[in-house]
Amino acid sequence: MDFKIAVIKGDGVGPEIVDEGLKVLDKIAQKYNHKFEYTNVLGGGAAIDVTGEPLPKESLDTCKASDAVLLGAVGGPKWDNIESSKRPEKGLLALRSGLGLFVNLRPATMHESIKEASPLRADIVEKGVDFVVVRELTGGIYFGERKTGVENGVEFAYDVEKYDENEIRRIGKKAFETAMIRNKKLTCVDKANVLDSSKLWRKVLNELAKDYPEVELSYMYVDNAAMQLVKDPSQFDVIVTNNIFGDIISDEASMITGSIGMLPSASVRGDDFGMYEPIHGSAPDIAGQNVVNPIATILSVAMMLRYSFKLEEEAKAIETAVTNVLNAGYRTKDIYNGVGEVVGTKEMGDLIAKEI
Amino acid sequence: MDFKIAVIKGDGVGPEIVDEGLKVLDKIAQKYNHKFEYTNVLGGGAAIDVTGEPLPKESLDTCKASDAVLLGAVGGPKWDNIESSKRPEKGLLALRSGLGLFVNLRPATMHESIKEASPLRADIVEKGVDFVVVRELTGGIYFGERKTGVENGVEFAYDVEKYDENEIRRIGKKAFETAMIRNKKLTCVDKANVLDSSKLWRKVLNELAKDYPEVELSYMYVDNAAMQLVKDPSQFDVIVTNNIFGDIISDEASMITGSIGMLPSASVRGDDFGMYEPIHGSAPDIAGQNVVNPIATILSVAMMLRYSFKLEEEAKAIETAVTNVLNAGYRTKDIYNGVGEVVGTKEMGDLIAKEI
Ligand SMILES: CC(C)[C@H](C(=O)O)[C@@H](O)C(=O)O
Ligand SMILES: CC(C)[C@H](C(=O)O)[C@@H](O)C(=O)O
Repeated sequence: MDFKIAVIKGDGVGPEIVDEGLKVLDKIAQKYNHKFEYTNVLGGGAAIDVTGEPLPKESLDTCKASDAVLLGAVGGPKWDNIESSKRPEKGLLALRSGLGLFVNLRPATMHESIKEASPLRADIVEKGVDFVVVRELTGGIYFGERKTGVENGVEFAYDVEKYDENEIRRIGKKAFETAMIRNKKLTCVDKANVLDSSKLWRKVLNELAKDYPEVELSYMYVDNAAMQLVKDPSQFDVIVTNNIFGDIISDEASMITGSIGMLPSASVRGDDFGMYEPIHGSAPDIAGQNVVNPIATILSVAMMLRYSFKLEEEAKAIETAVTNVLNAGYRTKDIYNGVGEVVGTKEMGDLIAKEI
Repeated sequence: MDFKIAVIKGDGVGPEIVDEGLKVLDKIAQKYNHKFEYTNVLGGGAAIDVTGEPLPKESLDTCKASDAVLLGAVGGPKWDNIESSKRPEKGLLALRSGLGLFVNLRPATMHESIKEASPLRADIVEKGVDFVVVRELTGGIYFGERKTGVENGVEFAYDVEKYDENEIRRIGKKAFETAMIRNKKLTCVDKANVLDSSKLWRKVLNELAKDYPEVELSYMYVDNAAMQLVKDPSQFDVIVTNNIFGDIISDEASMITGSIGMLPSASVRGDDFGMYEPIHGSAPDIAGQNVVNPIATILSVAMMLRYSFKLEEEAKAIETAVTNVLNAGYRTKDIYNGVGEVVGTKEMGDLIAKEI
């Protein structure tokens, strides 16, 4: 089959990790007889350098005309002093909202072979970490009204956390569906003892729950969730939450797995289209040194095959190749624990591609 | 000296832990020749049961007329189905804002003798955990405008995260002052790459920094902070942040110490007045069984002596007594790790009072 992929290599380690993702995709194309057509588009700091904009209209248009987007990472200290509406992060936000990607799926999985990398105690890790954060991605305080001004000589600023029932219902459905193909446990993380918006989330989710009688729905305050994630992450299956709490909770979740260089993510919207990227950032400090772990990006490619192209077998082939290469003892620097062999970014990509 | 203390025992384990706090205060009074005058006032669920309100006007008035407030804990499933404006939590929020307590000091300290209780790996814990979260407590999304309504037939709800420069300046000052008497490292946790309110925080803190040239001020995005807290908590000295991020970050921080039954907190406002309470909640599941750890409340009493009454020697006497009793091997159930002797709530209070 033929697929059009818009490729945003981005900044820092972005180009290196995306190259390994494409290497693996090429191998899949060859082995399974597909055609992947890549179009490089500018985004983030790289786009600012060339066009002055973090997301030129042309980039967004190319993404819209594609079947999926593969993104490396954006941002870095180089663009820190740019006026905030033009910063690399704004390109990412514009991409999410411009493409209507309201669902962000962030699996938190512990890779058996690198368990010791988790910052948690072994007896906690032993119970397993395997859940998904379903984060709302195009609403809430990220996209609500905001303002800076002066009132009676005093400067103020505000940001509005706003949701309507439709926004909550569509992400809620995705979360229930995700729970249905997993262990049927859904935890909504909110602050309903304080926020009106959280109360509306509960109301809509309670209504939706009637359509998914097999799913056990529960609620947890975000402060408690931040504690429970370190106390006993094995208690979670699927977490659904708003944009800002999802940002915090999913980063905490990825850190506790100890596998942050290995975690992929998917941003989707209900049809087959999606944007796929590693959870980690652009890590400018290690860029260009052939040391960054490309596995998060390679597993993001697997997610792309599964969700956007419905190529389950091919997705599994990548995931199995990753597991085999890790089991054979190959490690990038970030996940090396004294056992096995350290390899570079390119070599890791080669090993995984070869294993497919 | 003579001090008036308003006492809110509250719900769940509240009454038990407060009783031990008072036991220790009585011992201090006797040994150092002070007079502490206690006035019990109703708050939280206990107040709802009697008056229908989580914070009757009379309670607030008594607190206002006191030198300090000692609070146990409020809330529990019993009041979960009450209309939200009348829930126990609203009593707590009304108390904070009614008393103008805009600073919440939450130390995250690891007690040497119970280090194994931390959910983090030993080599991380080994580096030490000793920092303070300075949380803004009477502004932001907790107290901003909020609304639930219907627009074109679609239900919506919003909550506004709003700060003005004065609110930020007064908490910022407290944070810099706290850093000055500690290791002079201040980290502001925000989301300045997205929120206008966070940008105003940075602007005001940058201005304040000029008055505290010895303090090293840095900024960290809240998602990254949630990761860094589990990756390497030893990097923090003082964290300053808004109400909602402070809620999340300080709970995560207290959990990683493994000492959540031992952590006190102070809510203050610039003069000597303050409200003191354990960080943990009302734990209704273990209420009335003489098993809850009273140490967080007893250490809250020490904070009260230090901050509100300027009785440093007396505060230290309590803290030393706690350390001695722990070093002697006495443990409540929550911090028992197979070594030493398990004692009940009352017995722990007795041991500490006797040690003073
Ligand atoms: C870069 C930033 C705007 C972004 C976010 O907060 O969503 C990032 O932290 C993420 O989680 O993808
Ligand atoms: C009970 C609740 C409203 C409160 C808060 O969110 O401030 C609590 O979580 C706390 O941190 O003291």
